[in-house]
Amino acid sequence: MTQYNILLDPSKMPDAWYNIIPDLPVPFPPPLHPATHQPVNPSDLAVLFPPGLIEQEASGQSVISIPGEVMDVYRLYRPTPLRRAVRLEKALGTPAKIYYKNESVSPSGSHKLNTAVAQAYYNKVAGINELTTETGAGQWGTALSIACAFFKMKCTVYMVRVSYEQKPYRRSVMQTYGARVLSSPSKETEFGKKILAEQPDTTGSLGIAISEAIEDAAKSGGAKKYSLGSVLNHVLLHQTIIGEEAKMQMESVGAYPDVVIGCCGGGSNFAGLSFPFAKDKLRQGRKIDFIGVEPAACPTLTRGLYAYDFGDTGMMTPLLKQYTLGHNFIPSGIHAGGLRYHGIATLLAVLVREKVMRAVACLQTPCFEAAVTFARAEGIVPAPETAHAIRVVVDEALKCKETGEKKTILFNFSGHGHFDMGAYDAYFSGKLEDYVLEQSVIDAAEECIPKVAN
Amino acid sequence: MTQYNILLDPSKMPDAWYNIIPDLPVPFPPPLHPATHQPVNPSDLAVLFPPGLIEQEASGQSVISIPGEVMDVYRLYRPTPLRRAVRLEKALGTPAKIYYKNESVSPSGSHKLNTAVAQAYYNKVAGINELTTETGAGQWGTALSIACAFFKMKCTVYMVRVSYEQKPYRRSVMQTYGARVLSSPSKETEFGKKILAEQPDTTGSLGIAISEAIEDAAKSGGAKKYSLGSVLNHVLLHQTIIGEEAKMQMESVGAYPDVVIGCCGGGSNFAGLSFPFAKDKLRQGRKIDFIGVEPAACPTLTRGLYAYDFGDTGMMTPLLKQYTLGHNFIPSGIHAGGLRYHGIATLLAVLVREKVMRAVACLQTPCFEAAVTFARAEGIVPAPETAHAIRVVVDEALKCKETGEKKTILFNFSGHGHFDMGAYDAYFSGKLEDYVLEQSVIDAAEECIPKVAN
Repeated sequence: MTQYNILLDPSKMPDAWYNIIPDLPVPFPPPLHPATHQPVNPSDLAVLFPPGLIEQEASGQSVISIPGEVMDVYRLYRPTPLRRAVRLEKALGTPAKIYYKNESVSPSGSHKLNTAVAQAYYNKVAGINELTTETGAGQWGTALSIACAFFKMKCTVYMVRVSYEQKPYRRSVMQTYGARVLSSPSKETEFGKKILAEQPDTTGSLGIAISEAIEDAAKSGGAKKYSLGSVLNHVLLHQTIIGEEAKMQMESVGAYPDVVIGCCGGGSNFAGLSFPFAKDKLRQGRKIDFIGVEPAACPTLTRGLYAYDFGDTGMMTPLLKQYTLGHNFIPSGIHAGGLRYHGIATLLAVLVREKVMRAVACLQTPCFEAAVTFARAEGIVPAPETAHAIRVVVDEALKCKETGEKKTILFNFSGHGHFDMGAYDAYFSGKLEDYVLEQSVIDAAEECIPKVAN
Repeated sequence: MTQYNILLDPSKMPDAWYNIIPDLPVPFPPPLHPATHQPVNPSDLAVLFPPGLIEQEASGQSVISIPGEVMDVYRLYRPTPLRRAVRLEKALGTPAKIYYKNESVSPSGSHKLNTAVAQAYYNKVAGINELTTETGAGQWGTALSIACAFFKMKCTVYMVRVSYEQKPYRRSVMQTYGARVLSSPSKETEFGKKILAEQPDTTGSLGIAISEAIEDAAKSGGAKKYSLGSVLNHVLLHQTIIGEEAKMQMESVGAYPDVVIGCCGGGSNFAGLSFPFAKDKLRQGRKIDFIGVEPAACPTLTRGLYAYDFGDTGMMTPLLKQYTLGHNFIPSGIHAGGLRYHGIATLLAVLVREKVMRAVACLQTPCFEAAVTFARAEGIVPAPETAHAIRVVVDEALKCKETGEKKTILFNFSGHGHFDMGAYDAYFSGKLEDYVLEQSVIDAAEECIPKVAN
């Protein structure tokens, strides 16, 4: 009997995260101070982050233990199931074997809770009782709201305006967990007020919302810290629990992936699934095709500039080496709000640059088409972000159908689409617009990117 | 280490349902033909149901095997997790041990898929390719939509108007799975047109929607059959997989419930969890307090008349022995749409009548209050229906806090509230209205109930 639902015994849940930095093929390009262009000191970050996270950000250790208090929360929903998508395979008529790690079963509905819990914990032990953050689609804001409820902390979420308006119930969910949710740009920060004055009709962007959340924390006199849902090393680190579990689950059925796929906004869900497998490629030369999928409307990895740039629009973060469309880039209002980010995690940028991984960009309509195929076969409605991964999974599976190859494809089912049904309505009614970013926008981006000697 | 997340090895998933009929303390009161008042023949039901389900409806066997094709779909999401709600226990400061069976992890978001899959299967093997049904909150319609997608069948869902309007995204979900969804009363059936003419502003009701779905199937000349999401014996039977799994999971950690709690609309989720434990009470005299929870606005078990009545408003079903508020009763527009039903499953009615089980009724505001407490402690936002169960779980746990008793409480977390955030918004903004049904309405109900010699 083929095993569909591959569960991991809770007592065997991994109790450490995997840090890929020591295994990188090139030295990690450090974040730079925006004024001096010198690597930032840990103390430069202390206004925003607690010591535990700053330490992880620059750690040279491969294996980092998960604190017991974090494990306790993980045990509420982890280990998550690994599924063999036999019904999807049949629907596609492919000889490929498709597996997905189902992170949508977390209470927040996505992988985001894995790092939210860790971040809330390290802040709590540092005596912090309030966090600020941004959210795009709302998956991250929901996760941090839950984590703050668990650790009895306050939480303020700056939610990108287009998502705030498209998805009012995401706001309600965060409020149910006790968070305060503001439409970004807001009137609560200087930066928000500036943007509103300049562009009153802006859709908002993750870059703007990050600036607002950072400003809020930075001006709190130490009472609040800032929490980021992707991009940074410590965030990607916390997500590696996904890949660590998936490896054990694949092994338990004698499987190993030829292709690993995930959608990419800041990069954390793709990194979380793929890094533990990338370790095998980096250390042992194992042949695996890693594919990050991004929207054609925000094609960071496929068409962005490889450069040091700010992580936010307000130029408040250190300079991070990345692929970037420019920190003042505001993507079109596509429904995958979690993928509307001008940059990408440095770790992923390096791995794509070094050809350990690759990226492809998709239009949103074919992504929703693949998502509906998936829903009707496997039962779960994917988030629009996850739909991007599924599009490429289906494409790879159909290639196998042509060639007869029996590839093993593994992807991250990063989140469900329960709060994205408005996007599905738009898809079904033919109202979804497809955007390919114009080259002139990318060319113009270069002007806003700081000149750093590489 | 306390085990929070009690998983069952998929290879040990029960492969049979438990039929409680042979264990009832009194003979099962059969459904009656509305004209003759004689027990219906299986052939009377053939216009609506396939042979496999009709056989189960009147089966005298205790153990009924689950077909392999149904097991295959169950394996997509079952066994579902049993959770020890330690965080809720701590939040309440109770010495009670609280466990919940998490049916919200099913792709449909609730327990309803357990019977939807079985019903679609038995129809499919009987050569039927189209099903009609009703839905209140949308949990059942979603489940049947998925099941029909899995077995490549068409699905038409009559959705109670108040829910159709309160929850547009539930409709979108069903459409994503390929179903056709109509607001009930609709203009597609004679009965719907009649109700619309008489009461153009009606909120609709499950009773009306059932009549429409039955009419649609009955007039299809055999092309369509009708599918019911609760009430009937075969539906409750299919849900016993919940309790069968829960028993094994409780045993695996050396636990057994003193109290078993579930919300009651038609009764299927409560029956599904409780019947396998009720077997122990009926056969071995084991002491367990079974509590069904219903809304004070629709208090069937606590204040309804014990009588033969129709299952639908249009008087198209056989007469079913039950507690009833009258088949033409239209409940207030409370948010727990799945609990807005005038009657109750005969099996539960008998067990309450015979004092094997008991029922309590709750106002909706305290239910939402308990639901928010649960969400902030355990992370999952409950459906408004499930919130009713949680209210009584919290009450029982707080009683234990007073008395010092260390009771073991088990409840069915029947579904998540991801499509019910409008109700939470109403709760947070203080706009939720609480209804207690007036006695005059119940007194008046007697007039519409058919006179049957008991």
